[in-house]
Order: sequence, then structure tokens, then C-alpha cells
Amino acid sequence: MFLSFEGIDGSGKSTQARLLADALRAEGRDVVLTREPGGSAGAEEIRRLLVEGAGERWSAETECLLFTAARRDHLERTIRPALDAGRIVITDRFADSTRVYQGAARGDLRTMVDQLHELSIGVEPDRTFVIDIDPAVGLARGQARGGNEDRFESLGLGFQEKLAAGFRALSREYPGRVRLIDGSGTPEQVAERVRAAL
Amino acid sequence: MFLSFEGIDGSGKSTQARLLADALRAEGRDVVLTREPGGSAGAEEIRRLLVEGAGERWSAETECLLFTAARRDHLERTIRPALDAGRIVITDRFADSTRVYQGAARGDLRTMVDQLHELSIGVEPDRTFVIDIDPAVGLARGQARGGNEDRFESLGLGFQEKLAAGFRALSREYPGRVRLIDGSGTPEQVAERVRAAL
Repeated sequence: MFLSFEGIDGSGKSTQARLLADALRAEGRDVVLTREPGGSAGAEEIRRLLVEGAGERWSAETECLLFTAARRDHLERTIRPALDAGRIVITDRFADSTRVYQGAARGDLRTMVDQLHELSIGVEPDRTFVIDIDPAVGLARGQARGGNEDRFESLGLGFQEKLAAGFRALSREYPGRVRLIDGSGTPEQVAERVRAAL
Repeated sequence: MFLSFEGIDGSGKSTQARLLADALRAEGRDVVLTREPGGSAGAEEIRRLLVEGAGERWSAETECLLFTAARRDHLERTIRPALDAGRIVITDRFADSTRVYQGAARGDLRTMVDQLHELSIGVEPDRTFVIDIDPAVGLARGQARGGNEDRFESLGLGFQEKLAAGFRALSREYPGRVRLIDGSGTPEQVAERVRAAL
């Protein structure tokens, strides 16, 4: 079973991925919790190029290629071996992030994103949970975290609003796979909604 | 005018690219001499991921995506602006290297290489010079240079022989654009052959 969590930065999706992994492990399941960009040694090196530095450091097209390169490494070295061994894989972001960030919000590159995905990746999660929150709340949380992984947050509230709209649109485009989860309330309340949607 | 030099490591192609740039500048032409992977600030960062470290650090598929990402940045930030300003661009490696390294020698990925090129790059040099030498001589020269950019040399002589054969095949596939240049003799002798082919 291959599950992904998606949403804007500060949506609480990383917390929810961890809570679901903890709950499944408590039931005796063998779970690999991973993330993108990153999730394998090589992909983590590509991550630094993507999430640090100035907003305009790369064009949307170059970003698209770098995210796909990182995803290919992540798939080959972490996700595929775990699934082949019968483990559950939960990833914090996967291809839907590229569809929304580079396909809709950073550029109008959805065709390029889809062709790159088909050419180099080809798999989708069995289920995807989009944690939906107010973009202004997400941005404030993301900025409060500090650190130097703030390249996309640096693009501002208008960008976060486009992202939130893009993730909601994905839940309509893939109604079987992508479930929109209300991200308001305590982490435990949100986790109950995720569990009900699983 | 957009020109590229190709060949195995140690073939002397970088020297030939420089000699041609010097000769054209001596004639009063405005020349940008650049290289791949690299040639722009972002692409040089991607270069480090590609030419350093262990041979099996990346799969051929991931390499293909990383080289294409670097090429896209190089094209956007260095090559295209220079050509638009009417300058001559000479690059030490371009897409033919990916066709030979990932398309033929590292993996059998020519279809993927071509689709990625069409999707993300789309341009070819006006003329390409393949500097052709004995793979054993090239490997010995490459190794004698030292440094830590030896990831591809670490794949051994059999790999260099596949590369040399791949570059020769390209000169048959694109007879109008790609010219095979005998790389034996002094750098000045080779430069005369390049000039005659231009």
C-alpha cells in the first residue's frame, strides 16, 4: 500500500503523515515514512537545490526536471524496494505537488509535468490525502518555523492561494484516489478524518 | 552561430573548444565559450552531483533527468541570451553527450533521452565537432588529470570504448551537423582539421 499526503506548506500534512504511520505501526504494520523532495540519499542532495535560496533561482521548467530527477531516485532506492518487500509506504508529498506547484502555480506547465511523469515515474499512490487549510494560516505557520528551507514560502500569499486552489482541483480531477481532508482543529481531530478516509 | 564539441573525456575537446574560441576572437568575433554539465550558476551546482562521487551514485534514468535539468538552466541563462545578442556560442558538450552516455553507454535509454530533449530543450547546435581518439589514450589522459571529477572515468575502459563508438555513430546519424575530427597529432594539427570542417 502506497499513500501520500499533500497540501501547502504549514497545512499540517507532515504531522498527519507521522500520526498515520504511528497508528499503523501500533497495529503491527511495517511502515516506511518518507518525504519529497528527498527520501533517498541522492534525492536529499537535490532537495537542497530546490528548497533553499532565492525564489527565482530556477525557472518552473528546470524545477520540474529537478523534482522529477529527485522523485526517480526516491522511487528506485526507497519506495519501490519497500513496496516489493510488502511494506506500507507513506510519503509526505509526491507527484501531485509537482502537478500543483509547477503545473499550475509557478507556471502553466501541466502538460510538461504529465509527460515527464509518464516518461520517468509512471506510478501513483493508492490513496492521497490533501490537507486543506486557509492559505494565510499555512503561510504564517510555515514562516514561523524559520530555517532556510523557505524558497517557496518566499513567493508570498498570492502564490499560496494558487497552490491551495490547485490541490482542491486535484481532488476533483482524481476523485477515487485524492481525498480532501479538512485541516482545521487539533492534529488528533484531523487524524480521525484521515483515518475515516483511508 | 551555435557550435558544440563532443567526445570522450581526455579526447582534447576542451582544448579544441578553447583554441577555436581564441581564433574566432582574434578575427574580431564576439564568442561565449561555455561547457556542460554547467555553464550557468545553477547548472554548475547540478554538475557537482553528476561528475563527483561513485559511479553507481545515480541510475542512468536519474542522470538523464539531472543532465536535462542542467541543460535547461544553461540554455535559459547562458546560451539563449548570448545567441539573441548575436554572439557566437561554443559549448564543450551538449545534448549529444546525453545521447551517447545515457542513451547508449550507461543504459539503453535513447528513446527517453530524445523525448526529454524534445520536451525541455528542443534546440541543436549548427555544427558539432566530435574529437575522435583511441579510448585507452583518452582514459589515461583523463585519469592523469586527477581531481575529483572522475565519476564517469571510474566506469573503466569498456565504458570508454562504448562511448567512443556511440560518438562515431552520431556522426553517421547526423551527417550534416556532426563532423568526426581525427584527434591524433598536436593540438594545433587538430585545430586545423576543426577549422577546415567549420
